[in-house]
Amino acid sequence: MSLGPGDPDYLAPRAKGVLKDASVIVGYRTYMQLIEPAVLEGKETIETGMTDEIQRCQLAIEKALEGKDTAVVSSGDAGIYGMAGLVLQLLEERKLLGEVNVEVIPGIPALSAAAALLGAPLMHDFAVISLSDLLTPWEVIQSRVEAAAKADFVIVLYNPKSKKRTWQLDRAIEMISEHRSGETPVGLVRNAMREAQAVRITTLSHLDKSEVDMLTILLVGNSQTQIMGEKMVTPRGYNIKV
Amino acid sequence: MSLGPGDPDYLAPRAKGVLKDASVIVGYRTYMQLIEPAVLEGKETIETGMTDEIQRCQLAIEKALEGKDTAVVSSGDAGIYGMAGLVLQLLEERKLLGEVNVEVIPGIPALSAAAALLGAPLMHDFAVISLSDLLTPWEVIQSRVEAAAKADFVIVLYNPKSKKRTWQLDRAIEMISEHRSGETPVGLVRNAMREAQAVRITTLSHLDKSEVDMLTILLVGNSQTQIMGEKMVTPRGYNIKV
Repeated sequence: MSLGPGDPDYLAPRAKGVLKDASVIVGYRTYMQLIEPAVLEGKETIETGMTDEIQRCQLAIEKALEGKDTAVVSSGDAGIYGMAGLVLQLLEERKLLGEVNVEVIPGIPALSAAAALLGAPLMHDFAVISLSDLLTPWEVIQSRVEAAAKADFVIVLYNPKSKKRTWQLDRAIEMISEHRSGETPVGLVRNAMREAQAVRITTLSHLDKSEVDMLTILLVGNSQTQIMGEKMVTPRGYNIKV
Repeated sequence: MSLGPGDPDYLAPRAKGVLKDASVIVGYRTYMQLIEPAVLEGKETIETGMTDEIQRCQLAIEKALEGKDTAVVSSGDAGIYGMAGLVLQLLEERKLLGEVNVEVIPGIPALSAAAALLGAPLMHDFAVISLSDLLTPWEVIQSRVEAAAKADFVIVLYNPKSKKRTWQLDRAIEMISEHRSGETPVGLVRNAMREAQAVRITTLSHLDKSEVDMLTILLVGNSQTQIMGEKMVTPRGYNIKV
């Protein structure tokens, strides 16, 4: 299930209800802290580190097999680079898909929260790309960045950087810059709708990559995107006078 | 502001609060009906037809200039093909951006609601494309479909068809089929989390385009997407054993 950006004000009643009704709540440590303590009270909770995703989902499946209502939490939308797929993959592999009842609860994804804080950058076609090459060959990622840049998609970059992955963002920005003007607006959002939220609008040529870390999501405008006042806006059509 | 899929169970508390506090609520007729009647009681409401978007936003700006708290509603996420951009564009054009205080309230987008009902098709990079060529030249749309298909993005198609626009979907599916196997899973979702919800998983070669209408959103898998039981799942990595 999806926690949305993290602020309880953006948690759908359905998601809140699921958390309330679950006997077991499983999640990555940092995301568990987004849940109101009162909701967790009296429940079994399983918190693991970020890279223990498979173990975490296996534990959740064990709990479900014991007949316990179990919620696996993701921040943002569990259906976008979240845990929903892994749970289903593991169930399929263990031939348990028919046996365990799974419901995916959608939430407000990070890309929507970031877009809202920036203005309206996603009014036109966009491509969503994770720059993490831990599970995907860099050649695949690279070809997607290239394709999206060339076809004038607004580009949303997830996982732009981590402590160990630093050159991927440089390379991606280089590739995009071959197809877009240096004046193209770029929005950076960190911790959308959470404590320590940071929002910044800059341009491709002025982007300071040292401001980007693993908690940042980047939105690169297309050829039509403009900075209007303090907002980043992609007009909804091409050459249309509103 | 964003209504999410329509079911009040998926309306964020923040969005509900904004509706409650607004004195004027402006929206497309069909979407206004998604709002609980009790919330609208005693408020000024402005409902217009689907194509009256500019007029609708201008009326909302007039109300805001009169000092009234005004909410412009979109279904799904107002930031994805919604009203957020048009409001900001019109304010910019009228040089009112600094004068009128605008907040974009994100919501659960149609793509997230549809993905959740299908399983987990958006676990990997995806491209979101509207097939409506009312405001965008078909050549631009075509080049994006082609680029997304070639670079193995999962593809989300908004506005696949209307009564007057029927050939665009045929052409898009043709282009995608040049790069993907006929066995590629395709998910169709109509009225996600609303009355008359319909969810269907098929394949590129078996897609019955007569099942698609303007309320349908299509998700076309990438080369890794599989049908698992009754779910459509894109694994989170390439060639990775979970």
